[in-house]
Amino acid sequence: MAETKTVTVAAVDAQIKAILGAWGMAEPALSITARVMLWADLRGIDSHGISMIAASYRRMRDAGILNFAPKIEAVVDLPSIATLDGGGGLGHYPSVRAMELAIGKCRKTALAAVTVRNSNHYGAAGYYAAMAAEAGLIGISMTGVHVAATVPTFGAEPRFGTNPIAFAAPAGRNPPFVLDMATSTVAVGKLVLAARAGKTLPVGWSVDEQGQPLTDPKRARELRRMTPLGATRDLGSHKGYGLAMMVEILCSTLSGAIYAPTRPPSKPGDPYNVGHFFLALDPGAFRDKADFNDDLDAMIDCLHATKPVDPAQPVLVAGDPETAMEIKRTAEGIPLSSVLVDELRDIARAANAEFTL
Amino acid sequence: MAETKTVTVAAVDAQIKAILGAWGMAEPALSITARVMLWADLRGIDSHGISMIAASYRRMRDAGILNFAPKIEAVVDLPSIATLDGGGGLGHYPSVRAMELAIGKCRKTALAAVTVRNSNHYGAAGYYAAMAAEAGLIGISMTGVHVAATVPTFGAEPRFGTNPIAFAAPAGRNPPFVLDMATSTVAVGKLVLAARAGKTLPVGWSVDEQGQPLTDPKRARELRRMTPLGATRDLGSHKGYGLAMMVEILCSTLSGAIYAPTRPPSKPGDPYNVGHFFLALDPGAFRDKADFNDDLDAMIDCLHATKPVDPAQPVLVAGDPETAMEIKRTAEGIPLSSVLVDELRDIARAANAEFTL
Repeated sequence: MAETKTVTVAAVDAQIKAILGAWGMAEPALSITARVMLWADLRGIDSHGISMIAASYRRMRDAGILNFAPKIEAVVDLPSIATLDGGGGLGHYPSVRAMELAIGKCRKTALAAVTVRNSNHYGAAGYYAAMAAEAGLIGISMTGVHVAATVPTFGAEPRFGTNPIAFAAPAGRNPPFVLDMATSTVAVGKLVLAARAGKTLPVGWSVDEQGQPLTDPKRARELRRMTPLGATRDLGSHKGYGLAMMVEILCSTLSGAIYAPTRPPSKPGDPYNVGHFFLALDPGAFRDKADFNDDLDAMIDCLHATKPVDPAQPVLVAGDPETAMEIKRTAEGIPLSSVLVDELRDIARAANAEFTL
Repeated sequence: MAETKTVTVAAVDAQIKAILGAWGMAEPALSITARVMLWADLRGIDSHGISMIAASYRRMRDAGILNFAPKIEAVVDLPSIATLDGGGGLGHYPSVRAMELAIGKCRKTALAAVTVRNSNHYGAAGYYAAMAAEAGLIGISMTGVHVAATVPTFGAEPRFGTNPIAFAAPAGRNPPFVLDMATSTVAVGKLVLAARAGKTLPVGWSVDEQGQPLTDPKRARELRRMTPLGATRDLGSHKGYGLAMMVEILCSTLSGAIYAPTRPPSKPGDPYNVGHFFLALDPGAFRDKADFNDDLDAMIDCLHATKPVDPAQPVLVAGDPETAMEIKRTAEGIPLSSVLVDELRDIARAANAEFTL
């Protein structure tokens, strides 16, 4: 394991704001973006929090791809649906606005969907779905990705991003159900971790240029060609591939954003034009809200009580590990790798931003 | 391979109607149910067409579980959402009514969802999603299942059905995108086929009473314990498990249907109370309809043009194999196994129904 440094939640929050603020992001976008990124770090989704500044946002900013003072505009606004133009900035802020809009519409119509186009990476998909659940609603969040990394079944070239699906629903006694999953077998981050640890990859995570299974973690990290969920045709990779395409249709085709492999040749600084999809649905319009919450509690309890393969590893429900991590890290702080801390120090210095970690 | 007999499309249609009619199903439910079942047989989804009469509906009818003259009632009916009570009959008819209702509402609101409770097996999930696509809309269809067969990650007991997701979207030049997938790694039908062929199962399809991989096809067919899509924890079975739970929440918890493992002890003849979920969304409300169709065509074309692993097996898009099969079987007729034809002859005789095959 790499060396880590545990820092306070407030320090991470301050560091995100210091860097993004120095790059030109103003309130309210700044606090909202930091909140979404911090949520990922608190819940153990380390690949989607403050690390993104070093892993990706710095490069996009340097390439002139990110607009740090975007104007978020509604290009369609009807009682049950809307489309926002994200103005070419980071995706977190327009996505929070989009889910807020969906929740507001849902209060009147019981069901609403909002798409976002001309956006970028929006952090952890689960955040927006969880916003709906916190409001007592069912929430869905999906996003396209500006670069293709997932290879369709029978194919030897990548055609979709990791195209995640998040779904959240409010229980009563239990924390909400929060599913947040890439439609690829694993996310890119897992290849990076395996390469660092020098571990041979399981067959089914990654393929080579000929579409054949690739188990060398270093080559897999360089190539970044993931399988769709299902891994192989025998185990159902055509299903993960189909889900990835569903996400792409709802995020890119529906909003008018760009499907990456059909992107025309671009000049440096051209916006990525990534699309997102959000949906809010009110269970209290379908039936008594308390009955819905009670029935979901009964389902969750039933799953937790399922006979486990190994008594030391009980059956979990989506969101359980993240909720436990959030409690732990809220109390104890957030561990960051020393490498990341060093990178963030450099980025802060270059941006004339305060270093808070 | 077992012996097969190829029969005309009209003969299959007539046989479905003759048996269900003799069991007490009247018009318009009779023609609509036959249309949905025939669609599955035409598209090669053999496990969900006329074979269901022999494989399942006969037993349910004999057990007094199916009401063949149900009253379909709207228990909730708002501008964007509704819930129908299926009256305890087969699921096809209330599900067609539900998707018709969703499509009608969607014409006014751009987005609508309808749930069904107190229903049963509804055939191929894709039919209802495809109804929306034929109407120029995006469609979603999902269903719960009356018996649990899929084992959650880390668990040794089944907790969900195959809980399918279907999603369809209209293209321009191309046939619609129609994804129709169980959220288990494979459907029960594949275990039955493997058992018949005496083939050892791939690790990851099925587990035993201890939750350990089971590759003996005969035992797997008896036990019927499937893994969620992803097959193993390493390959992402927690994602398929999460998707199965999402389907269950939208179908059962939202509609007020029953989540099978929490079903109270029942007496013979008690209804299964299965739930379904349908959604229709109008892409023409988000952007110019023709632009949406064109962009989806471009995506489909791009996928078809993807460099294949094996030049003899091009990259497909969900719905391609079924569309090809529909063209073939419409022209040539539908092959039924001789065993199935014999079973249907016996069922027709017992019901005093005409035998048309």
